[in-house]
Amino acid sequence: MGTRFDHLFSPRSVAVIGASSNLGKWGQMIFSNIVAGGFPGTIYPVNQKDQSIFGIPAYRHIEEVPGHVDLAIITTPAESVPGVLEGCGRKGVKGVVIITSGFSETDKAGRDLEARLVSICRERNLLLVGPNTMGIICPYADLFATGAHIRPRKGSVAFISQSGNLGVQLIHWAKQQGVGISLFVGSGNEAMVSCVDYMEYLERDPRTRVIILYIETVRRGRSFMETAARINRVKPVIVLKGGRTEAGRAASASHTGAMGGEIVFFKAACRQAGLLEVNVPSELLDLSAALSSLPLPRKNRVGIVTLGGGFGVITADRCNERGLLVPAIPEETVTRIGKYLPPFWSKGNPVDLVGTHDPDAPLVAVEELLMLDGIDAVISLGIVGRLEFIRLLVQSTRKIDSSQADFLAGLESLGAAYEKKYIEKLAELMETYEKPVIGVSLSRTDEGTVRPVDGRKYSPVFYQTPEDAVNVLARMVAYRAYLDSP
Amino acid sequence: MGTRFDHLFSPRSVAVIGASSNLGKWGQMIFSNIVAGGFPGTIYPVNQKDQSIFGIPAYRHIEEVPGHVDLAIITTPAESVPGVLEGCGRKGVKGVVIITSGFSETDKAGRDLEARLVSICRERNLLLVGPNTMGIICPYADLFATGAHIRPRKGSVAFISQSGNLGVQLIHWAKQQGVGISLFVGSGNEAMVSCVDYMEYLERDPRTRVIILYIETVRRGRSFMETAARINRVKPVIVLKGGRTEAGRAASASHTGAMGGEIVFFKAACRQAGLLEVNVPSELLDLSAALSSLPLPRKNRVGIVTLGGGFGVITADRCNERGLLVPAIPEETVTRIGKYLPPFWSKGNPVDLVGTHDPDAPLVAVEELLMLDGIDAVISLGIVGRLEFIRLLVQSTRKIDSSQADFLAGLESLGAAYEKKYIEKLAELMETYEKPVIGVSLSRTDEGTVRPVDGRKYSPVFYQTPEDAVNVLARMVAYRAYLDSP
Repeated sequence: MGTRFDHLFSPRSVAVIGASSNLGKWGQMIFSNIVAGGFPGTIYPVNQKDQSIFGIPAYRHIEEVPGHVDLAIITTPAESVPGVLEGCGRKGVKGVVIITSGFSETDKAGRDLEARLVSICRERNLLLVGPNTMGIICPYADLFATGAHIRPRKGSVAFISQSGNLGVQLIHWAKQQGVGISLFVGSGNEAMVSCVDYMEYLERDPRTRVIILYIETVRRGRSFMETAARINRVKPVIVLKGGRTEAGRAASASHTGAMGGEIVFFKAACRQAGLLEVNVPSELLDLSAALSSLPLPRKNRVGIVTLGGGFGVITADRCNERGLLVPAIPEETVTRIGKYLPPFWSKGNPVDLVGTHDPDAPLVAVEELLMLDGIDAVISLGIVGRLEFIRLLVQSTRKIDSSQADFLAGLESLGAAYEKKYIEKLAELMETYEKPVIGVSLSRTDEGTVRPVDGRKYSPVFYQTPEDAVNVLARMVAYRAYLDSP
Repeated sequence: MGTRFDHLFSPRSVAVIGASSNLGKWGQMIFSNIVAGGFPGTIYPVNQKDQSIFGIPAYRHIEEVPGHVDLAIITTPAESVPGVLEGCGRKGVKGVVIITSGFSETDKAGRDLEARLVSICRERNLLLVGPNTMGIICPYADLFATGAHIRPRKGSVAFISQSGNLGVQLIHWAKQQGVGISLFVGSGNEAMVSCVDYMEYLERDPRTRVIILYIETVRRGRSFMETAARINRVKPVIVLKGGRTEAGRAASASHTGAMGGEIVFFKAACRQAGLLEVNVPSELLDLSAALSSLPLPRKNRVGIVTLGGGFGVITADRCNERGLLVPAIPEETVTRIGKYLPPFWSKGNPVDLVGTHDPDAPLVAVEELLMLDGIDAVISLGIVGRLEFIRLLVQSTRKIDSSQADFLAGLESLGAAYEKKYIEKLAELMETYEKPVIGVSLSRTDEGTVRPVDGRKYSPVFYQTPEDAVNVLARMVAYRAYLDSP
């Protein structure tokens, strides 16, 4: 179905059937998102009432639209959808996204109605996303077709979500954290196109390097696992399964119209396939940030560079608890790093920079560790995010000493320039040594987790906490070990 | 040592010995923080060079200071500190905070020097914090005496940290998350005053309701556990132990000058004492936010109210996985909630609001659950934080339709007013039913985790993820069970 998916995810023209100018209606939210999001193709609003919506000429029926339509997005009431699909078929539309709910997730009548949709789509050669979906986001086509107006940057992470609301929240996080997206699909009830089909499309999509799945109902179980296992050897597949417990299954049954499978078997199958199975949504994003941005570590030996002691201690603890080693480093390395540090530094791994302001020390320490054969990855704690503390200091000092205004402004921009340089240099070092450096920010900032550097193969990544950094590294080590296993 | 600690933490006058106007020096950072932080008492800079610093008259020796000095903060080099302390003693200073490092955390000479400090302080009746500390923060005295210019709001969480850098980072998070602080002490090498002494002070401090400890070295082990266990029955004690593993101990030994105890015994003792032991720093803050803001749940039965399905599924899963129940709710409750929702809602627990915009539905659902005997706590997902999505929608629509500007502005302020009212109402409901409501925000915002409401006993709390909310609730249930145990 490769080329057929292209009509869905790279359409040249889109119709919104049920488009509206009434704020808060699905037909308004999705239509205005497509328009305001800058979709470069042709957009046709279709509705019974208005002659034009947001200044764009509207049509009463899809068949009245003058040009060709690749993709139709449908928000009209459930009972109207079969008729709308017939019209789409006659019009020669290639793909439809049915936002409307009230199908198999409700009752017997809903299941029957959904079956009708599928048979119309089969007959009319329409590819059907949903129904009961939040929509799709195709950053490379500049197509943002969800009710929530979130526009993540272009990137290499594809995300298929059976839950719209969870998917949208995760995409919002992705945007805030700077995780680049190649595709988001709210797959909804998966009446026609299942998770397996989407995976097969993504397997061939050159822009997608990492796949995230949120699934409540595994359909075509064997095929799902075989496909996921095959793809996972090339593109890591990260899975969050909703409905793992009795309570979760009860909640799930009520809203997607199907019972969850046996979680024990599912987890065992994931393990065997080397999938990155996670239990909580935040981990989906943390892992996707790392796997789409960093080289994989060869083994589990970690070097730690920290701005201060306690930070290093808890990171070392977490490493050991998660099966990562923090090995001793050679005397020569200690000597070389020591040239940049006061005499009372830690003289070992973790390298405690004891709060140094020497601009070279952190990068020297990171590189000295990266060049060691016995180190597979470096965790860098607290260099990025220090700027926030400089800013606070500068603000305070400005308040009580107006004579130094220029000097203070200079200090702040110096700090910002240093942080920028540090991030660029980490990207360069990762390319040189083909080892990951995982950063932990000293403070929560609005800059996001992933900090891409123009022209670089890898993007430095900075988590909010040491525990997140260690967790991600431990999962990467396990994934690499799986790939290396016969 | 109760009254003596008051001189430290509620001083009327403070001298900074080693004060400086050179940005980046400890003597500058701490002095400017105290001044800019608005300390209402008298401040005396003491240094060898300047006649005045930031317009405040400076003195060459502590003994030249004209008025009385309660607290001296010392940043001069290690070898000068004994002489400085002698001067403080003669001057009648009551307490000293020694920021300077280079003592027992370094070598034999450092240990000897530290022993001298202690004997001088004993002889001169000086209470000694540190040495090798980042300083102290006493919000109720408006005294911010750390190098990092972070000024958390007044509150009920006291934090004793053996690591300065970790402490400072956590205080920064606390400020960002809105967790109110009663006291922060970087206890440093604890040469004279140990964690046990601080705990005994906090036991009697009426402003402190929750105690956080970051410890690498447990001194006076038996006394520590007995004190912590006693206090924990009244004020929850949350502990993060650094140096739990070989790697962590190695890192710790290099920077606090002492080896960690046996972690297995430590953990067993914590369990027996019902302490809230955690493995990662983020959990320290998550727990302190909840324990300082919410009533304790009686048991483990959770009601879930969610804006959308998937969110509810993964929360229910997490609840079951963490030992919390998500029980069925009575038919009458379903009927009453159903009046506010479309017919296709979940009709059970989790209550899936199916994205409703009915302003009453979320609060009705929360209250209906709270009033049930079989429900001990409610998790509320996605109502707060929805405003961010409204803002995005409004921004987009404004871009493509200028005719609705007033209406759009109104929509945004309506959304903000609703969120405010929702938070106020949750505070009221918690007081009425004496049960906690734990919120999860639909989007990351700058508003912080804790959202205090004027005049209310409890403060609503909103975490970024369902997993954090469930974890906190599970820990609260366990703590309550410990308190209820004979």
